[in-house]
Amino acid sequence: MDTIASSNLKRPEPQALASTLEALAARFGNRLITSQAVRDQHAHTTTWLTPEPPDAVVMAQETADVQDAVRICAKNRVPVIAFGTGTSLEGQVNAPAGGVCIDLRDMNNVLEVHADDLDCVIQPGITRKALNEYLRDQGVFFPIDPGADASLGGMASTRASGTNAVRYGTMRDNVLALKVVRADGEIITTGTRAKKSSAGYDLTHLFVGAEGTLGIISELTIKLRGIPETIAAAACSFSTLRGACQATILAIQTGIPVARIELLNAAQVRACNAYSKLTLPETPLLLLEFHGSENEVAEQSRNFSEIANECGGGEFSWTTRPEDRNRLWQARHDGYWAVKALRPGAGVVATDVCVPISRLADCVIETEADLNRLNLQSPIVGHVGDGNFHCSLLCDVDDRDEMARGEEFMHRLVERAQAMGGTCTGEHGIGQGKQKYLKAELGSEAIDAMRALKRALDPENIFNPGKILPAI
Amino acid sequence: MDTIASSNLKRPEPQALASTLEALAARFGNRLITSQAVRDQHAHTTTWLTPEPPDAVVMAQETADVQDAVRICAKNRVPVIAFGTGTSLEGQVNAPAGGVCIDLRDMNNVLEVHADDLDCVIQPGITRKALNEYLRDQGVFFPIDPGADASLGGMASTRASGTNAVRYGTMRDNVLALKVVRADGEIITTGTRAKKSSAGYDLTHLFVGAEGTLGIISELTIKLRGIPETIAAAACSFSTLRGACQATILAIQTGIPVARIELLNAAQVRACNAYSKLTLPETPLLLLEFHGSENEVAEQSRNFSEIANECGGGEFSWTTRPEDRNRLWQARHDGYWAVKALRPGAGVVATDVCVPISRLADCVIETEADLNRLNLQSPIVGHVGDGNFHCSLLCDVDDRDEMARGEEFMHRLVERAQAMGGTCTGEHGIGQGKQKYLKAELGSEAIDAMRALKRALDPENIFNPGKILPAI
Repeated sequence: MDTIASSNLKRPEPQALASTLEALAARFGNRLITSQAVRDQHAHTTTWLTPEPPDAVVMAQETADVQDAVRICAKNRVPVIAFGTGTSLEGQVNAPAGGVCIDLRDMNNVLEVHADDLDCVIQPGITRKALNEYLRDQGVFFPIDPGADASLGGMASTRASGTNAVRYGTMRDNVLALKVVRADGEIITTGTRAKKSSAGYDLTHLFVGAEGTLGIISELTIKLRGIPETIAAAACSFSTLRGACQATILAIQTGIPVARIELLNAAQVRACNAYSKLTLPETPLLLLEFHGSENEVAEQSRNFSEIANECGGGEFSWTTRPEDRNRLWQARHDGYWAVKALRPGAGVVATDVCVPISRLADCVIETEADLNRLNLQSPIVGHVGDGNFHCSLLCDVDDRDEMARGEEFMHRLVERAQAMGGTCTGEHGIGQGKQKYLKAELGSEAIDAMRALKRALDPENIFNPGKILPAI
Repeated sequence: MDTIASSNLKRPEPQALASTLEALAARFGNRLITSQAVRDQHAHTTTWLTPEPPDAVVMAQETADVQDAVRICAKNRVPVIAFGTGTSLEGQVNAPAGGVCIDLRDMNNVLEVHADDLDCVIQPGITRKALNEYLRDQGVFFPIDPGADASLGGMASTRASGTNAVRYGTMRDNVLALKVVRADGEIITTGTRAKKSSAGYDLTHLFVGAEGTLGIISELTIKLRGIPETIAAAACSFSTLRGACQATILAIQTGIPVARIELLNAAQVRACNAYSKLTLPETPLLLLEFHGSENEVAEQSRNFSEIANECGGGEFSWTTRPEDRNRLWQARHDGYWAVKALRPGAGVVATDVCVPISRLADCVIETEADLNRLNLQSPIVGHVGDGNFHCSLLCDVDDRDEMARGEEFMHRLVERAQAMGGTCTGEHGIGQGKQKYLKAELGSEAIDAMRALKRALDPENIFNPGKILPAI
């Protein structure tokens, strides 16, 4: 694969690094870890990007720890990489110039819950499952579900979303305010608990999706929702991919507030059948979830069923029984393992693009054709209400020819999405893996602006260097 | 009132200004206007802020006009102020250091409508009513309604919202991408038509709400919605303000997707009764609107009526007949004129704050008490689902004592909102009028960050100088 263009990233001088580690050891004692095993755990490992471990890991327990670690590193211009759960997919936690990883997993407290206001204040290390466990008995939940049990700080930093973004939005739409440790260790407050504000530049959204390159999120104020009275799940097979996409478009356009609407292409359904011992028709499938009152859910299901019928959908069944719902979604959640089981031993490279929904059928169909042409295997699942879909490319990393075809496929996938008015990533972020696509998508003026913002907030380039912006 | 701390803003040297106007005249002919009358029309006039007219107005007809005007001004460091309809409320279009106003009203084309994707691409000068007129026969609409028939470029620049933000969000949530003319006249593209993206820093949201201080928006890609099948309107009087607020909280929390939920305090209802010849009970009133299918709207209304009943609401009636709906909302829309009619000749100063919804009742009740104490008249209307409310303060601008009390009231209103975890402005913006409140709200680190961003993108400070950021 492409080597990341971070070759001109400078590692800190050995002496600067040594004195940084010494100062960190004095401040953090055994919460500074330099063992190879722990450093390796904090390098990126979920894709075919080469893991690049940091020089050391600091286990932060409170905001003052983050501030002090940043101050110590900044003094010697040593890179600082924030770490949540390490589930990012584009090399976001790699350390191409070495430096110090600040592991935030122990900063996992819920600081305030305001159920009346539907918001809460949390530390960045809490994971979404732990948060929802904590919130459950207050009748509220946090809706963003990227699949992995990621930390909320990491989800904000990569602008994550997932299966129910179609109804509840992405992290972009669900962060009200942040506290961010800046390069001198001081803390920027980006907003208040007010649900809307026109007070100055939108610092909140600048840090959401910045992948830790502009500062380190030390606190988040996020929006919550009331737990729906009724949840219904449904599945509907379509004879064509185009029919499934058209049903989705109509559902969105007529305003059916679907909570999830997931597309599995035939290859993905085949994989799920094999793995989960199911007998689903091996044609494109939509999995849906509806949230609301009992009546609302019934009406949503009824309306969608009419649409599905018009678009060549097969039998449409919906259920509100938790055990049935769980069975239905299990296949979706096991999708990754189902793909992996198709070729044990091969690597699975997950990537995502997002296009305007009217182009989704074209984009997926052309992508399937490309896979055939290149003799590659990559089942497709999509958060289709948003025009966002994922390829899970199976590749033997030791097979140079297959890897070359895989690389070609990935390039063409991104180019196809961009040519259709879409983006090179809907929810995984740029990290290291997608830097080469940013200019084609937004132009050099946007890159210039991003560079200017980076220089403005992190002039010494200590925060997660080598991410988002291509090396010059 | 406070004089704006823009005294250290430097006007351009007379010679620089003269040569700029000469170059603009050569480029734009009679589309460069320097008559006093036109300059005055482009200064801010809707509040008690002193109008500060620009030195000249350029009537732009296409993007190249904006680019050239910016280039000519930038060469001589002459300020550039973007102008849509001039309906902003905090001095956003004033020209405290003089300079050139670029009037964008003729750049009012709809460039593309993608009904399947629920988005469209427009020029900045189109107003929301003209846009919705244009879209109507395609079954889609743009939901943000700030009251005034503002231009979309201006609405994006002030991060506007209005009555139905509670369901559809604010401009923050409804702009997908922008084209922005930067200080050298080149154009930054901030995003694509994809509904979500994790591709790099969120430039879109940086320019939304920047009040023209970072560049000039020359094109917008915005989200649309399907026109609802049924719209129902309802009114419900409450014996107490707290009851009305509690009903709102419960409606939001139980997930009733109200499209509008507006609070009128007793003083506002009195004003509306007098002006619109109505006989509403002169107690706090909620006006609501529900969007959806016939069944959905019926269920939403039924659910809300139960909540209202629990919270001490009086008779609750809802209607889907357009003529009844219009009558009901007319009183709300005439609210400003109703207030003005209370004291013909006096000025009406509109201001807004926004608090977490759980504090709304406290905030409005304390505000009413303050008005009594200061012997001032200011009916209150609120976009109460968002915790956002407006005071329409009646003041005789020639009565120094009343003006001093008015100023004290305004200060205390903002301080109260901020102390409750809210913001000094939910939707009007900072402009000139609210600069003095930004530091108390977000702290000096946030102001530092905003200044750094301004310097990064507009190092010569030519874009709308003297706005948002307090003079140093």
